[in-house]
Amino acid sequence: MAIGEELRSSHFWRGVLAELVATLIFVGVVLGASAAPGPLAPALAGGLVVGGLVCSLGGPQANPALTVALLCTRKLSALRGAAGVLAQCTGATLASAAARAALQDDTGLVTRVSAVGTAGTALAWETFATFQLSLVAFSIPELTAPQAGLALGSAVAAGALAAGPFSGGSMNPARSLGPAIVTGVWDDHWVFWLGPVLGAVLAGVTYEFLLAPGASREKLGA
Amino acid sequence: MAIGEELRSSHFWRGVLAELVATLIFVGVVLGASAAPGPLAPALAGGLVVGGLVCSLGGPQANPALTVALLCTRKLSALRGAAGVLAQCTGATLASAAARAALQDDTGLVTRVSAVGTAGTALAWETFATFQLSLVAFSIPELTAPQAGLALGSAVAAGALAAGPFSGGSMNPARSLGPAIVTGVWDDHWVFWLGPVLGAVLAGVTYEFLLAPGASREKLGA
Amino acid sequence: MAIGEELRSSHFWRGVLAELVATLIFVGVVLGASAAPGPLAPALAGGLVVGGLVCSLGGPQANPALTVALLCTRKLSALRGAAGVLAQCTGATLASAAARAALQDDTGLVTRVSAVGTAGTALAWETFATFQLSLVAFSIPELTAPQAGLALGSAVAAGALAAGPFSGGSMNPARSLGPAIVTGVWDDHWVFWLGPVLGAVLAGVTYEFLLAPGASREKLGA
Amino acid sequence: MAIGEELRSSHFWRGVLAELVATLIFVGVVLGASAAPGPLAPALAGGLVVGGLVCSLGGPQANPALTVALLCTRKLSALRGAAGVLAQCTGATLASAAARAALQDDTGLVTRVSAVGTAGTALAWETFATFQLSLVAFSIPELTAPQAGLALGSAVAAGALAAGPFSGGSMNPARSLGPAIVTGVWDDHWVFWLGPVLGAVLAGVTYEFLLAPGASREKLGA
Repeated sequence: MAIGEELRSSHFWRGVLAELVATLIFVGVVLGASAAPGPLAPALAGGLVVGGLVCSLGGPQANPALTVALLCTRKLSALRGAAGVLAQCTGATLASAAARAALQDDTGLVTRVSAVGTAGTALAWETFATFQLSLVAFSIPELTAPQAGLALGSAVAAGALAAGPFSGGSMNPARSLGPAIVTGVWDDHWVFWLGPVLGAVLAGVTYEFLLAPGASREKLGA
Repeated sequence: MAIGEELRSSHFWRGVLAELVATLIFVGVVLGASAAPGPLAPALAGGLVVGGLVCSLGGPQANPALTVALLCTRKLSALRGAAGVLAQCTGATLASAAARAALQDDTGLVTRVSAVGTAGTALAWETFATFQLSLVAFSIPELTAPQAGLALGSAVAAGALAAGPFSGGSMNPARSLGPAIVTGVWDDHWVFWLGPVLGAVLAGVTYEFLLAPGASREKLGA
Repeated sequence: MAIGEELRSSHFWRGVLAELVATLIFVGVVLGASAAPGPLAPALAGGLVVGGLVCSLGGPQANPALTVALLCTRKLSALRGAAGVLAQCTGATLASAAARAALQDDTGLVTRVSAVGTAGTALAWETFATFQLSLVAFSIPELTAPQAGLALGSAVAAGALAAGPFSGGSMNPARSLGPAIVTGVWDDHWVFWLGPVLGAVLAGVTYEFLLAPGASREKLGA
Repeated sequence: MAIGEELRSSHFWRGVLAELVATLIFVGVVLGASAAPGPLAPALAGGLVVGGLVCSLGGPQANPALTVALLCTRKLSALRGAAGVLAQCTGATLASAAARAALQDDTGLVTRVSAVGTAGTALAWETFATFQLSLVAFSIPELTAPQAGLALGSAVAAGALAAGPFSGGSMNPARSLGPAIVTGVWDDHWVFWLGPVLGAVLAGVTYEFLLAPGASREKLGA
């Protein structure tokens, strides 16, 4: 049985473990940097840690939206995708619990819809920011190594700076789920799942069928 | 007929689409980051998103000034140049409309001449900032991949930081046109076309005839 | 005698000298940038100088925690490790003395436990930040050159931004020892040795036995 | 005659022109970014523009201190060095005149000794910051292309952040000379020549005779 074989392979479990560790590191760094005033520190910290992780660990997406988009474009098995998302949410929750223990005021951890905007505005910006991030992520398999970390880290920081004033610039459902679980603040939480997943799937489809070298409509039947 | 052939090739239309998508992403990210206080967020976001786009999408200029400079140095067909500028302005206007819908106060979107300076000052700085950016852009075909994104992203951020206090650091007529269309604020708008185009053409000429490896006066007749 | 041979080789002493120079530069840059207001300047300066040093000098760890972790994973001889740590502490103390002479108020030099947190909180964040930094450092021998500087510099800046609000984001016992010696402020100094060393050793073990290509349990007996 | 030949070669004059253009761009970007509040904007702008220039133009030092250090380590002919420094000072003065024309209050252009420190303190920090920058610059001929821009840009930004609070973080006599000429403010101007030149020559000697692969005392007689 294919599923049984996959579950017994050490490659499978090492990949899932890398997802957990990478998401724990990403969410921990972003939440720690969010304790500083101003929007620059968390945005730059997020971009920098992603750049470092891509260069060193290579594979992990550390982002359920990217994992779902890879599933939709048939680049990942369903089992690997589901285990990856579960590992990402576990890593994010562990990091959020650690961050909460360290902070007296934990309201800064949760990504929220800006007071000057609506949930629709936040949804649009989360979709847009994740779209540009995922466009880069989809082109990564065709990139050489130093370029991949540079490109993905830059896109994470740019997206966080762009969407930050409207929605906190999450672009990552796990990064929003962890703090919601440990603080119990679930206001507009759907925005941070729907927006990133929509943006990532849209980017996957745009890249595969329009922009990729050799993109074509025939791919739909592959 | 050559023009008919070009219009029927999927390569042509994919390039034009990439211009639209890249300019939409660039302008969206810069306008979103402009909602944060201080000059660092939009400058860094602009540089980071350009770095990411060059690494992933490769080709698009996402900037009418660069496209015009490539036309002047005969590196682009007139048809491709015109279609590219149109696509860039469309992408920038779409991004500006989205940004305007999300903001209560849309005055921060428009690039303006600084209150402490004159239109002439702003023109000089836009020309200078686009000159240094375009010098990098013209050397890119001779660069390897990771270097190209790094160099162009750095130059965009550096130029935005330098010209920011005087003119907002646009360096890109499409980035200035979009917000002007959606807000109806056209004060000194000519500065943001003349400055960048002048700077880019000047850089193209300087690079091609003075600095490029193998640069020579004979190129004028090529 | 192997130790006698090692002590007579110019390669050995050049490596130790590089540790001293690199730590002097790292600590000097971080302490100088700490005189500016806000958390961004020292974090970015630290990451940038590490990126530059890795690209130019290559080898040195400039961090006792990394050296101890390399000792624990048997990648360094005991003699070279001890001489390296001594050189790092000497370099850091020289830089701290120079920084102290230049500042009227030297309280900003010392890394401290944040007033809103406890020593335990600071210890947890130092461990976490050094863990993610060291994970990158352990993967560096398998990286090509430009990637190594980019990855390590990014991880230093990201860790400093993340742990900064809780513990000052030292991640480097030498960086904390130098200012403590020249100012005589030793409050919670153990946090800045235990946390980084724990994080680095944990990362070394995680990388070698779980994440590295070809990682396996047999390595324990190697 | 060797000097006559050199003066007639187009390679010689193209190199001198590149020095003028690169220094004009560097000083213009740094002075423009200095109009923004805070120490981050000019430091990052300086690092970013150097990274972009190294990637695109390659050769120019754009810094009299580096040119003098290359002369001292016999890597440049005396004629080329003198013409280079002259071109650098001309470029810096042109950029400063342009910046002065655009600013109502030109006091921010000049690098000064900090009010809380002495000229000796500023001298020490200029020497230190230029030392670490030049150490990277001397290792550049052995670096591959993307690494060179990254390393030198990082070192410029790190040094500016470190020395900024004490001396403005010039590390470049041309960058200090230009504003002094156009504003007539020459307070402690010698600090910005002696410090950088001392730091660069010290780095050249340290690198060539101690740290470089294949460094040896015999090089002194080469």
